[in-house]
Amino acid sequence: MAAERGLAMATCTAPVNIAVIKYWGKRDTDLILPINSSLSVTLHQDQLKTTTTAAASRDFTEDRLWLNGKEADVGHPRVQACLREVRRLARKRRGGGEDTATLSLSYKIHIASENNFPTAAGLASSAAGYACLVSALARLYGLEEELSEVARRGSGSACRSMFGGFVQWQRGERPDGTDSLALQVAPETHWPELRVLVLVVSGEKKPVGSTAGMQTSVETSPLLKHRAEVVVPERLAQMMRHIRERDFEGFGQLAMRDSNQFHATCLDTFPPIFYLTDVSRHIIALAHRYNAHHGHTKVAYTFDAGPNAVIFLLDEAVAEFVEVVRRSFPPSTNGDQFVRGLPVGSAVLSQELVAAVVSEPVPGAVQYILHTKPGPGPQLVDDPSQHLLGADGLPRSRA
Amino acid sequence: MAAERGLAMATCTAPVNIAVIKYWGKRDTDLILPINSSLSVTLHQDQLKTTTTAAASRDFTEDRLWLNGKEADVGHPRVQACLREVRRLARKRRGGGEDTATLSLSYKIHIASENNFPTAAGLASSAAGYACLVSALARLYGLEEELSEVARRGSGSACRSMFGGFVQWQRGERPDGTDSLALQVAPETHWPELRVLVLVVSGEKKPVGSTAGMQTSVETSPLLKHRAEVVVPERLAQMMRHIRERDFEGFGQLAMRDSNQFHATCLDTFPPIFYLTDVSRHIIALAHRYNAHHGHTKVAYTFDAGPNAVIFLLDEAVAEFVEVVRRSFPPSTNGDQFVRGLPVGSAVLSQELVAAVVSEPVPGAVQYILHTKPGPGPQLVDDPSQHLLGADGLPRSRA
Repeated sequence: MAAERGLAMATCTAPVNIAVIKYWGKRDTDLILPINSSLSVTLHQDQLKTTTTAAASRDFTEDRLWLNGKEADVGHPRVQACLREVRRLARKRRGGGEDTATLSLSYKIHIASENNFPTAAGLASSAAGYACLVSALARLYGLEEELSEVARRGSGSACRSMFGGFVQWQRGERPDGTDSLALQVAPETHWPELRVLVLVVSGEKKPVGSTAGMQTSVETSPLLKHRAEVVVPERLAQMMRHIRERDFEGFGQLAMRDSNQFHATCLDTFPPIFYLTDVSRHIIALAHRYNAHHGHTKVAYTFDAGPNAVIFLLDEAVAEFVEVVRRSFPPSTNGDQFVRGLPVGSAVLSQELVAAVVSEPVPGAVQYILHTKPGPGPQLVDDPSQHLLGADGLPRSRA
Repeated sequence: MAAERGLAMATCTAPVNIAVIKYWGKRDTDLILPINSSLSVTLHQDQLKTTTTAAASRDFTEDRLWLNGKEADVGHPRVQACLREVRRLARKRRGGGEDTATLSLSYKIHIASENNFPTAAGLASSAAGYACLVSALARLYGLEEELSEVARRGSGSACRSMFGGFVQWQRGERPDGTDSLALQVAPETHWPELRVLVLVVSGEKKPVGSTAGMQTSVETSPLLKHRAEVVVPERLAQMMRHIRERDFEGFGQLAMRDSNQFHATCLDTFPPIFYLTDVSRHIIALAHRYNAHHGHTKVAYTFDAGPNAVIFLLDEAVAEFVEVVRRSFPPSTNGDQFVRGLPVGSAVLSQELVAAVVSEPVPGAVQYILHTKPGPGPQLVDDPSQHLLGADGLPRSRA
């Protein structure tokens, strides 16, 4: 929190996460309480992050919000829910009376938020966004407690972005949601060899938003009900064991099965929801051929509410699999920027591998590959030059 | 049965059927006993049928089989199972001793079978084929009992092609399969307005055969187990009520839901099975937009283990919906043969309808539409000139 001329300011960054046991469906749409627990891997902020600056000043005349440089509706109910909850906790902490040394809760706030990746590309930008908003607000008001419950009020999966590494969002039992929290299963350092490739698929915007889609599923899919009640509790326990044991075979198989089952419940929704496209099908088939060729699970796919594929694999498999993807989905341009993120070595594919795995290339179907790995939770940005708001409380103009 | 120079011959035709409560998975792969009951509509043989001639003679030196004019393997276990069961029933009927007036069960047989539609186009050709084989053999040996149990041994869904109209294949409980039979729910005359459009989708052969696919599903899909045990029993009772009451809204909605759920269990299989393609998705979305525009269920889709769509609708909707399909999937050729089968009137689409329903046409995606309706079960062909085998017991050469 920086204070000058009555202006307090805090900047944080927060990560996206990708679920390996999927969340789909709320039992309480207002409090955002899920019908089942879920489990995710937090991705590294060097590749994918949101940065948010929150500022408060007695000179501000209204609350304001900027997303990626454009002013947005600060009255959005979910933004308001986060703001209200953070202020409520701050008030509780202060035990009532205002203290001149602390920031007044009555000051209006300005918030600016930016992603270092395209919004709404199916890359869980809302999870990073709300985790970052809550982290920045908490810093601004000097809160130190665990705030996944507050982030959950912004976007369900945002609560999982409040921790690094491997994170469980436990369903909880209480009607008020106070036990529907994120818990770290293992830190990002737990499995140093684990790598993640995001295969960004071209075109086609999301046909049904996840908020509307999941409630239609809750109302119409008999299979989702069974999944939430019976299948997920078993799978969650299994997945935690695989992670603890760094058992890639078990982890990868279960991640793929759970992704498929989530999309199965979308198809069992009425009217049905399709997030997987023919390109996703090609990627899935490719992963199974690749694993079959090697005789064990070397890569595991998972898909959220969009066509992009997220591939888990160990570092030793990255160079070869990236080359397999490049051969299967030849870049439509010169391919300069086809691989982004962490460096990828070069690999020569054996003829047997190509013959067994690379069938019928689909040029241009994969836009680019982002290479990343598990990473830490939200971070405080200490350097004041990194604030997204200037001393006037308005977004800094960027050259 | 025609007998000349020691040659006995019988010819039958049999229909295909399309399930509205789907069969997927066997509890006994040898006896072909399903994990759940299913329900289908028998399609009219004027549009889709198999014709089979079975002949027996003391002069035949070996069993032989011709499919669509080409000799095929008569030793196929499922063909043998049907042959064995029919002979066993004939023997039982005769009470042991051979009678000179009846056809000797020791004679070798010749069988010729033809479809009036492309085999393996995902049009349930095996159901019609085995129903026809069993019907022709039964005629040859003078059997008069209900033989759905025998047809089931050829192909599970073949038992449903042993009746016309609306047919239930009841799961049964006995380990020997004697109660896993087809039962007619209502004859083809029960719902005179009901029509069927088969949208034959271009290209792409079936990726996973249904026999192998369904057993992988039984072994790996937790959702299929729940579907078979809990969901289908409820749905079967509902569907029979909708059919009895000729309630198209209920019938159509449930048919769509059950088709989607079947494909959901395919996706929940590991590795996942995809029968729906992007074209199927387009057809599904089109049907929902069309129904939404009209404010009620005018058309209902169902998909089997292939990309072709089968659309149920009432006669008054045919002309308009065919025009909607033509506009949504403009024929790549001149469109002469785009609509086949029963005549279809012409329709002019309102601008509102086109605006609301026809979005982003996909030229050439639908090869042609076959217009048909519910029809009767297997038929005896009395006219000897229609036998597929000649007096020499070999396939007739067709000019």
